[in-house]
Amino acid sequence: MSERGRFISLEGGEGAGKSTLLAGLHAHLLQRGVRLLQVREPGGTSLGEAIRSIVLDPAHPAISAESELLLMFASRAQLVRERIQPALEEGQWVLCDRYVDASYAYQGGGRGQPVERIAELERWACAGVKPDLTLLLDLPVSTGRARAAGRGAADRIEIEADAFFERVRHAYRERAQAEPERFRVIDASLSPGQVLQAAIAATDPLFEAS
Amino acid sequence: MSERGRFISLEGGEGAGKSTLLAGLHAHLLQRGVRLLQVREPGGTSLGEAIRSIVLDPAHPAISAESELLLMFASRAQLVRERIQPALEEGQWVLCDRYVDASYAYQGGGRGQPVERIAELERWACAGVKPDLTLLLDLPVSTGRARAAGRGAADRIEIEADAFFERVRHAYRERAQAEPERFRVIDASLSPGQVLQAAIAATDPLFEAS
Ligand SMILES: Nc1ncnc2c1ncn2[C@@H]1O[C@H](COP(=O)(O)OP(=O)(O)O)[C@@H](O)[C@H]1O
Ligand SMILES: Nc1ncnc2c1ncn2[C@@H]1O[C@H](COP(=O)(O)OP(=O)(O)O)[C@@H](O)[C@H]1O
Ligand SMILES: [Mg+2]
Ligand SMILES: [Mg+2]
Repeated sequence: MSERGRFISLEGGEGAGKSTLLAGLHAHLLQRGVRLLQVREPGGTSLGEAIRSIVLDPAHPAISAESELLLMFASRAQLVRERIQPALEEGQWVLCDRYVDASYAYQGGGRGQPVERIAELERWACAGVKPDLTLLLDLPVSTGRARAAGRGAADRIEIEADAFFERVRHAYRERAQAEPERFRVIDASLSPGQVLQAAIAATDPLFEAS
Repeated sequence: MSERGRFISLEGGEGAGKSTLLAGLHAHLLQRGVRLLQVREPGGTSLGEAIRSIVLDPAHPAISAESELLLMFASRAQLVRERIQPALEEGQWVLCDRYVDASYAYQGGGRGQPVERIAELERWACAGVKPDLTLLLDLPVSTGRARAAGRGAADRIEIEADAFFERVRHAYRERAQAEPERFRVIDASLSPGQVLQAAIAATDPLFEAS
């Protein structure tokens, strides 16, 4: 039986550089001989992608904060059971573009859903699967939005006001402070190469730990 | 300001006669001068109908019990806030084809999700909106399935085994026993006319109460 894989989640605001980093980190880990599953949230399963297209659709502007929270966890519960858990169990590493911290940041900080409510959902919806390492790409909101602006039409969450994303950033940083062993906060205003180097350094210890 | 409306939910297994009763009850209440909103679950809003098409789609056979529960409440949270609550507040009555008891029966009894988990979701997702009256159409599973069989392709839940629907029926009856003031159990093996008469009798007291 192979050793259990490692679970790395990437978090941060819009345009922080998660997708960019994911590509570089993926290549690095493959080079180190790791078997990898890369997924994104919301999404990553057929159910999850269907939920993603609903929840990010600007045509559903009136989605209540409660429904948004429930939809994010519906996608996550499926992703964990259908893909992340099986992969980890058979020794693959998992790279996830957002995971449960995003709900604390967006539905919690951003939309004001109580943290205890989110924690209670995490307790049963995530089947005990927690990242071994969470890379938080931290960046001033305006910088991230300027970067993301080049990317085409904004989705239902990207069209929120700056104050929303300030709350998101704040909530992410609080999460990182509360769990310093799991989080590594990376200054996302650095160059892509420097961000990747910081991420690689943070993943190194995962090769030793068991 | 108008008096608050009344909220009536219809519950029961597949083919119990909910849609049939709904039509008759709707006509009766209109005749009595009630302004009415009729909705169904999952669904009833643009978000809810999108969720409905996912959750009942036989192409998603692998939906986890946790995700199914979360999706049902995502639809419900939206329905309550967007339609039921506003309607009740401005004096309309609401007729709902399934509501929260269906989650206790299907996701609880049927799929085995813990009742405390469902109760916790109800606490915050339903915004305190509870039916004034719940009509439970009770029927042996085999009778209901035989009736529903004529209705075309079965959805993702209708294809479950009889044992599933026996658990659903049992859970519904337990709910009714636990809250006898709110529930009225109707023998759904009676004729459509008799079922409607029983339902009308059950709604009569709602005209006096305030
Ligand atoms: N470290 C960086 N410095 C400058 N620009 C960056 C950096 N990382 C990413 N970008 C650019 O910013 C934009 C958003 O990056 P992306 O990786 O899509 O962010 P995210 O996935 O976090 O929203 C892209 O145009 C990308 O090329
Ligand atoms: N009381 C009844 N007796 C016999 N058949 C009925 C009765 N009520 C409904 N039916 C028939 O059973 C089938 C299922 O009824 P329907 O109202 O669609 O059930 P549900 O909405 O609860 O699934 C329909 O063909 C309907 O005409
Ligand atoms: Mg991205
Ligand atoms: Mg029906």
